[in-house]
Amino acid sequence: MRDVAILGIGQTPIAEHWEKSLRVLAGEAVFAALADGGRERVDGLFVGNMLSGPLNRQENLGALISDWVGLRGVEAVKIEAACGSGGAALRAGLMAVGSGAMESALVVGVEKMTETVGPQTTAALATAADADWEAAMGLSFVAINALVMRRYLHEYGWQHHDFAAFSINAHANALHNPNARLHDAITAKDYSRARMVADPINLLDASPIGDGAAALLLVPAEQVTAGERGRPVITIAASASATDSLAVHDRRDPLWLSAGYESARRAYQQAGVGPTDIQVFELHDAFSIMAALSLEACGFAERGQGPRLGLENAIGLTGRVPIATGGGLKARGHPVGATGVYQVLEVAQQLRGEAGAAQIPSQPRVGMAQNIGGSGATILTHILRAN
Amino acid sequence: MRDVAILGIGQTPIAEHWEKSLRVLAGEAVFAALADGGRERVDGLFVGNMLSGPLNRQENLGALISDWVGLRGVEAVKIEAACGSGGAALRAGLMAVGSGAMESALVVGVEKMTETVGPQTTAALATAADADWEAAMGLSFVAINALVMRRYLHEYGWQHHDFAAFSINAHANALHNPNARLHDAITAKDYSRARMVADPINLLDASPIGDGAAALLLVPAEQVTAGERGRPVITIAASASATDSLAVHDRRDPLWLSAGYESARRAYQQAGVGPTDIQVFELHDAFSIMAALSLEACGFAERGQGPRLGLENAIGLTGRVPIATGGGLKARGHPVGATGVYQVLEVAQQLRGEAGAAQIPSQPRVGMAQNIGGSGATILTHILRAN
Repeated sequence: MRDVAILGIGQTPIAEHWEKSLRVLAGEAVFAALADGGRERVDGLFVGNMLSGPLNRQENLGALISDWVGLRGVEAVKIEAACGSGGAALRAGLMAVGSGAMESALVVGVEKMTETVGPQTTAALATAADADWEAAMGLSFVAINALVMRRYLHEYGWQHHDFAAFSINAHANALHNPNARLHDAITAKDYSRARMVADPINLLDASPIGDGAAALLLVPAEQVTAGERGRPVITIAASASATDSLAVHDRRDPLWLSAGYESARRAYQQAGVGPTDIQVFELHDAFSIMAALSLEACGFAERGQGPRLGLENAIGLTGRVPIATGGGLKARGHPVGATGVYQVLEVAQQLRGEAGAAQIPSQPRVGMAQNIGGSGATILTHILRAN
Repeated sequence: MRDVAILGIGQTPIAEHWEKSLRVLAGEAVFAALADGGRERVDGLFVGNMLSGPLNRQENLGALISDWVGLRGVEAVKIEAACGSGGAALRAGLMAVGSGAMESALVVGVEKMTETVGPQTTAALATAADADWEAAMGLSFVAINALVMRRYLHEYGWQHHDFAAFSINAHANALHNPNARLHDAITAKDYSRARMVADPINLLDASPIGDGAAALLLVPAEQVTAGERGRPVITIAASASATDSLAVHDRRDPLWLSAGYESARRAYQQAGVGPTDIQVFELHDAFSIMAALSLEACGFAERGQGPRLGLENAIGLTGRVPIATGGGLKARGHPVGATGVYQVLEVAQQLRGEAGAAQIPSQPRVGMAQNIGGSGATILTHILRAN
């Protein structure tokens, strides 16, 4: 496959966009990405979305969105892998352009979640879990993550407050991201006192849902001139996807993201790098426990030692492994099927040096994003490089 | 991209499988395809499905099914393009193997629709249409097709009974297909007297929903020896996808499947063939009007002249354009997200000469399948060749 570059990026703020429909949100991100990349048309459109069926009574988003953005007729499709849908859509678009089947493609992640009532949203999110063996027993998605976190605390001897740094860091970085859902700094005391959601997960362990869309414009790397518009060329150096059992209880070790490990391993191999080469890591901190598990699966921490990176202050903008630089899922917000695209967009912005006040000072040249569908069932890892 | 062959095929009967869950259905088709192809493992799994979210409360089907069939860990994802999901999943699998990203892939279309009550299924199917401008007005999916058929009758001067041959042919062929949902021959009188569903579409114009799964095992063509197991090698000679507006009222001509025309045009170009070279055509006869429109879009009939092929007896097993050889959507049944895979499987069976009593006597060497998502919004065309 030929090398593929991210020529343009676009996003909407993550918020409660009650006045904007699914297609309008997607369109805003697409138009921004096209304008950013200086293009008007593409050969295809890949939509990452999880819940448009149950929440918006709308499927067939490929045709819906391509028509709305003035691309009627192009090949278009929706890709679904629960909260990993955005990353999976990027991988599909990459395959299309990398294989030569297309000369350009748009990847757009979009989700609209705040118009429905809470129980409906919770039930819809539970479709990311095993319907027959988890959801049917009354387990919500946050409850599944709570079981994992409780077990982690028990197994490795951590206390709940040891996870505080993940949320504090995410909220601090989000202050500088105008597109983030939450703009409020939090303290360790706030974290510990937050309202309980599903013990031991409290409100400040959990990412907020939201409405939003993010888009990436992909073209063959050979079409992009280095230094165009004063920017480095951002290429996708690696893309890998792996799966695990849907139900947590079916895993050999419920505290180990084997699909995260496997997709990161393949991605490192493709890019010819290792964890120490990654200068910005956008991980899937839907819950603070998932931040720890993702750091471990990707080789940034030993098994059971994820929280240590937070405690050692290694995750900030000047740390060894900057994470959640745009607020992460925790504070940027988590419009589930769009998240994987927001993550890669954030890494691209950092590699471009366009992250504003949240810019990593040592301007990174290699960054990684890991997108998780379900409680670890589908995990996609992408590595970007600034050339 | 390198050439890709269909090494194995597998399917379940289309029926009311109340005793089988989504994963069990998919597994049966996958195991059959693996056994048929003489393989045990693949590098990836592409699931075509439309309604698992609203109807089965289950998303993340890629991970669910790959784990169930003993492929835990492989890359897996769900592809959705309404009733075109199956064809879109095939196209994604083809891209993965054709590009060299994978050495083998399974494509499985699966849908489970009969456990929910009618209004719920009807509402779920309406998500294939425009939620804001069609479904919100109370238009069901069959009602949209009824408006199109009514307009077609008015515009081109046909009578309802002129469409009878499409349904009679489909039901006749399904008699020989043990996996078909319906096994009852019908007459022109039956057709005309059938219970009205949405005027002018009656029960014998409309395909029945159903539960079912079909799978295709894809490998690089170079890996398959001609004559293996006494069979021709079936390669995918062309694959193309195009879109149109989701809402019918937004189209320049609501009686013209421009996405069908466009995807067929590209497919003909890729395969270096034209309509007269196609010896078996598996079209998307979800409603008899769609059979006529698909024949026109693909160049088998002039605009407005689709029904003529039925009246001239050109669509039977010994006709000029054999269609619905396994019963079509009309009588084999229409498990929506699985249909596109069933269609390609049917063509492959014909090219292998394994269609039993429904075998086209002149054993075809080039066949085509056209899969339609929505009322023409997403259309995929695949051409297969026996080598």
